[in-house]
Amino acid sequence: MLGKIALEEAFALPRFEEKTRWWASLFSTDPETHVKEITDINKIRIDHADKYGVGYQILSYTAPGVQDIWDPAEAQALAVEINDYIAEQIKGRPDRFGAFATLSMHNPEEAAAELRRCVEKYGFLGALVNDTQRAGPDGDDMIFYDNASWDVFWKTATDLDVPLYLHPRNPTGTIYNKLWADRKWLVGPPLSFAQGVSLHALGMVTNGVFDRHPKLQIILGHLGEHIPFDMWRINHWFEDRKKILGLAETCKRTIREYFADNLWITTSGHFSTTTLNFCMSEVGSDRILFSIDYPFETFPDACEWFDAAELNLVDKKKIGKDNAKKLFKLGAYKDSEA
Amino acid sequence: MLGKIALEEAFALPRFEEKTRWWASLFSTDPETHVKEITDINKIRIDHADKYGVGYQILSYTAPGVQDIWDPAEAQALAVEINDYIAEQIKGRPDRFGAFATLSMHNPEEAAAELRRCVEKYGFLGALVNDTQRAGPDGDDMIFYDNASWDVFWKTATDLDVPLYLHPRNPTGTIYNKLWADRKWLVGPPLSFAQGVSLHALGMVTNGVFDRHPKLQIILGHLGEHIPFDMWRINHWFEDRKKILGLAETCKRTIREYFADNLWITTSGHFSTTTLNFCMSEVGSDRILFSIDYPFETFPDACEWFDAAELNLVDKKKIGKDNAKKLFKLGAYKDSEA
Amino acid sequence: MLGKIALEEAFALPRFEEKTRWWASLFSTDPETHVKEITDINKIRIDHADKYGVGYQILSYTAPGVQDIWDPAEAQALAVEINDYIAEQIKGRPDRFGAFATLSMHNPEEAAAELRRCVEKYGFLGALVNDTQRAGPDGDDMIFYDNASWDVFWKTATDLDVPLYLHPRNPTGTIYNKLWADRKWLVGPPLSFAQGVSLHALGMVTNGVFDRHPKLQIILGHLGEHIPFDMWRINHWFEDRKKILGLAETCKRTIREYFADNLWITTSGHFSTTTLNFCMSEVGSDRILFSIDYPFETFPDACEWFDAAELNLVDKKKIGKDNAKKLFKLGAYKDSEA
Amino acid sequence: MLGKIALEEAFALPRFEEKTRWWASLFSTDPETHVKEITDINKIRIDHADKYGVGYQILSYTAPGVQDIWDPAEAQALAVEINDYIAEQIKGRPDRFGAFATLSMHNPEEAAAELRRCVEKYGFLGALVNDTQRAGPDGDDMIFYDNASWDVFWKTATDLDVPLYLHPRNPTGTIYNKLWADRKWLVGPPLSFAQGVSLHALGMVTNGVFDRHPKLQIILGHLGEHIPFDMWRINHWFEDRKKILGLAETCKRTIREYFADNLWITTSGHFSTTTLNFCMSEVGSDRILFSIDYPFETFPDACEWFDAAELNLVDKKKIGKDNAKKLFKLGAYKDSEA
Repeated sequence: MLGKIALEEAFALPRFEEKTRWWASLFSTDPETHVKEITDINKIRIDHADKYGVGYQILSYTAPGVQDIWDPAEAQALAVEINDYIAEQIKGRPDRFGAFATLSMHNPEEAAAELRRCVEKYGFLGALVNDTQRAGPDGDDMIFYDNASWDVFWKTATDLDVPLYLHPRNPTGTIYNKLWADRKWLVGPPLSFAQGVSLHALGMVTNGVFDRHPKLQIILGHLGEHIPFDMWRINHWFEDRKKILGLAETCKRTIREYFADNLWITTSGHFSTTTLNFCMSEVGSDRILFSIDYPFETFPDACEWFDAAELNLVDKKKIGKDNAKKLFKLGAYKDSEA
Repeated sequence: MLGKIALEEAFALPRFEEKTRWWASLFSTDPETHVKEITDINKIRIDHADKYGVGYQILSYTAPGVQDIWDPAEAQALAVEINDYIAEQIKGRPDRFGAFATLSMHNPEEAAAELRRCVEKYGFLGALVNDTQRAGPDGDDMIFYDNASWDVFWKTATDLDVPLYLHPRNPTGTIYNKLWADRKWLVGPPLSFAQGVSLHALGMVTNGVFDRHPKLQIILGHLGEHIPFDMWRINHWFEDRKKILGLAETCKRTIREYFADNLWITTSGHFSTTTLNFCMSEVGSDRILFSIDYPFETFPDACEWFDAAELNLVDKKKIGKDNAKKLFKLGAYKDSEA
Repeated sequence: MLGKIALEEAFALPRFEEKTRWWASLFSTDPETHVKEITDINKIRIDHADKYGVGYQILSYTAPGVQDIWDPAEAQALAVEINDYIAEQIKGRPDRFGAFATLSMHNPEEAAAELRRCVEKYGFLGALVNDTQRAGPDGDDMIFYDNASWDVFWKTATDLDVPLYLHPRNPTGTIYNKLWADRKWLVGPPLSFAQGVSLHALGMVTNGVFDRHPKLQIILGHLGEHIPFDMWRINHWFEDRKKILGLAETCKRTIREYFADNLWITTSGHFSTTTLNFCMSEVGSDRILFSIDYPFETFPDACEWFDAAELNLVDKKKIGKDNAKKLFKLGAYKDSEA
Repeated sequence: MLGKIALEEAFALPRFEEKTRWWASLFSTDPETHVKEITDINKIRIDHADKYGVGYQILSYTAPGVQDIWDPAEAQALAVEINDYIAEQIKGRPDRFGAFATLSMHNPEEAAAELRRCVEKYGFLGALVNDTQRAGPDGDDMIFYDNASWDVFWKTATDLDVPLYLHPRNPTGTIYNKLWADRKWLVGPPLSFAQGVSLHALGMVTNGVFDRHPKLQIILGHLGEHIPFDMWRINHWFEDRKKILGLAETCKRTIREYFADNLWITTSGHFSTTTLNFCMSEVGSDRILFSIDYPFETFPDACEWFDAAELNLVDKKKIGKDNAKKLFKLGAYKDSEA
């Protein structure tokens, strides 16, 4: 399919090249290529896209990124730098690139203001934040955005009518030491990513974020970070807990309703037709968006899978691009298909 | 279907009735009924089973149970008491009841010895342990069984040729305080259970337990605690990590091979035909076992769902009883079908 | 779900009551009830609908109906009578009833003219024809509508912008005698219906009807009369046959494209969630429409199944009513949901 | 996967090469290659198999074959010639080849005797017949095997404990003229094959063949010739017809029971993972057998699809070879996997 739209696509700042190299050495089978790919914006990325039929990419700063910086001032400064940088980089290619704002999530008002600046000044299409914000004197604390103190931020997102992509980051601090160090192979895509984001996203559901902000749109990668698998089970227990335990006060709708109204999932890093088919039953093709997770995943792995996947053409087109066009109001964007 | 076999079926000790009542008040829509049902062995349970076509039940002590007791001596004493109690309770009904051993998991040798005693003396069909063992002076530590110090225990299980059911328990200690207190609705079946058990089970996979004990059989409830959903993604990253990061040293087979050779899933608490169909693709009907999770779930919810589920009859019979007959060598058990 | 829309819902003329009774005796477990239900329009039907959450029904004359009459004049007269009758019957309930035109299919111009009359005069929402038209001196011939002589008819349908429901009828004449008499249990829903309609519909595809009338919309009942099952296989062979055998001359698009652009399927008489899930993959939820097939099937069988079916809410709403609202331009129709 | 077993694999007699060439010209994109591949036994076929991991092939005479010959004596003579020929051809390679008997189906006793001769003298593994036997003075009649006159034949098959593969052939005679000539693109794999075999197979079900021969095993190609798609609908109507119409006299079990006890399906010519997953739900992996349909389909199309198909390993191995080993008692056959 030509003109696919992808939206979990990472870049890094060139000035952090050495750090990026070290980081890549921890997980990549080819760290040098990774460094080049994640640092590039306009050359390698466009070549890949042209070769594999991706028309438009929404770029976001790599994880853990600003969510790893526990000093609030440093975090904010870096977020602003990143946003200014990527705006400058992509401004010549509005036909091929959009961006998600990078945000320091230490302070709701500050995060809201930077989101507004990016959307209003640069035309960014929303924001991508990497799960919880590392905080506290030693970076051991985790800030979640699922309590009422973040209402000002979520209100801004809905006022601006832009979605937020809730992206994973590695576990840190006490939690990491307790649980993950002894089974380090599970840190990242095999397990910890989905555990972190599913906790956070379902925290938003149960703590009433979507009841207070019924128009808020949240995107989850990797086909939904495990949540679709337990749709029946979550629904069953949520409805039970509403009867006796007060959950109904903050969570008035069913989990299926939040998925119908507020949540989206992408195919990033989960290129399985069987699982996609399952998600089409439990989430629905109108709320699924193609994505790659480049350069942690490759264009050919994602695109050759998707293009060859046995699927009806209506849903394939929706997942491949039409849903994204609608969500991000990319009406002006013309993909290369007749 | 008559003669179904169910294997995640909980009981409690009558002497803890008050504690059970308090516990039930935290989650149950009808605590008094719950107390009666979980404390009963031979009356209510048989009535339900007769009414809903369950021929045989393998009973296990309720969670968190002994895994909640951080004093090793107290934990061991309680485990022995529980095992002696349930052996006595069910000995008159070998046609209807089997049991899993309850084990203190503070010490591998001690756990192995108690497992051996229960299997050899009482004919127990394996063991069920509730995720990690709470330990340490304040109960804040968590003992995992996925490192080499537990080899003596796993060797005993394979020598005895009995499986172990890895059942969830609530998060405790530091972990609980950090992550779960602010989103309490997710503790238990909606999320924390699956996160705990999937970490532990995949820890066993990556830390080499199944490579060192290739005949070991582990059972996971709730259709696999999220893991089947990410089969493709886990496989993709495990195989990558083997190339560069040393995972191949302890984890020689693929995740699909461990599911083919060492892991089982049950339907406990997850009565969804769509998800079951998905698991039949990703896990396979030969490794799926019917279960209820009584009295946390009800006989009618589980049995009426399963009996009415649209499914070919060969797999329905396998999942409903034949797989369990084979795994637990219940050849002598004659269910009530012609 | 309240406000469901159903569109394969049959009625019979009161003056044929005796014939209806004889016919019902051939297949119904309760012929008297069947006669009452199929002859009624405004009483029993509304009661069922109110009880089971059906807001709007599109009525059509029962099969084989006019397609069973091999005398052209008699067929045309009956079609006109039926259309005038049902228009009169439903005119007081535009909030609850629409109708499909009944057509004599002996002559394309005549069929086109009657379709136009029904749409323009009565506001009918399209037509439903029962597979092939019986014809010839002894009723042994079968008129198919998949050749160029029917272009005038299809052009009229697209000009009027209304769909045609291609509904089954029993095999007749030589074909019946040869194949079906010795295995009479397969006549009708178990097999012959799907064989007849799938041949006719794929005949339209391969003989170029949709290439000549790219806006034509055809509806198939019973989840697509077997065709979705072989989507891969049909596509595989069609594309092969285009390379060598000239199929490309009349059939320029792929079978998946015709399903994306021209074909719809309904749930009539096929109340299986597993099969519906499969069709959501191969056909797509945007082209699936709820239907019952009343009174050959019952409201509770159809509605209780659909309302309880495990399915994401977006697709459930689309299949239950939103797709039909769009296809039939029922914007004015307000269903009873808040 | 190494050592796959394939069982719908066709050969032709060398002496019919010219006829084979003419036949190939009707459907093949490369008739010359087709002629070589279908006429070869030991060279091209083994090369393909070695390259694509097929360990064992069960060969059968191409369709329509003997079922196209309406003269009984000529049909019988040809069947005997074919059986003697293929027995001679494969006798040196018992590790790689088995055969299905080719049978003239004009006379049940004669067919039974030839089946017995092939099984007892040559060790053939069953028979493959091409749907109905063409018969009558002009070849316009069709002999079905679903009535009581064929009981002697089915009794022989069950006495010998060998299955019969019910394979399609092209429609002929009156039927062809009436229905298929005007939509010739649908003749064969796109539609007519499945319509013919599904009618015949369900005729056997409803006419009591499996009730009278409860151990009879019938194999259907192409993932079941549409029948699994309508499992729910067929079951629904069969059970209804038993209540009122006498179907219960000959068809005592449900359609799901016949699929559990008497019917098998193969993947021949239907290389779709989505459809295979659906069949795993409705038929079950224990009754599904890998096959190619060579040389009408290619080894790479079938084998690369199957080897790459996302599927649990237990079922993959069963479908790929283990089910066939069990059905055909190929215990001695050692595939090439470690």
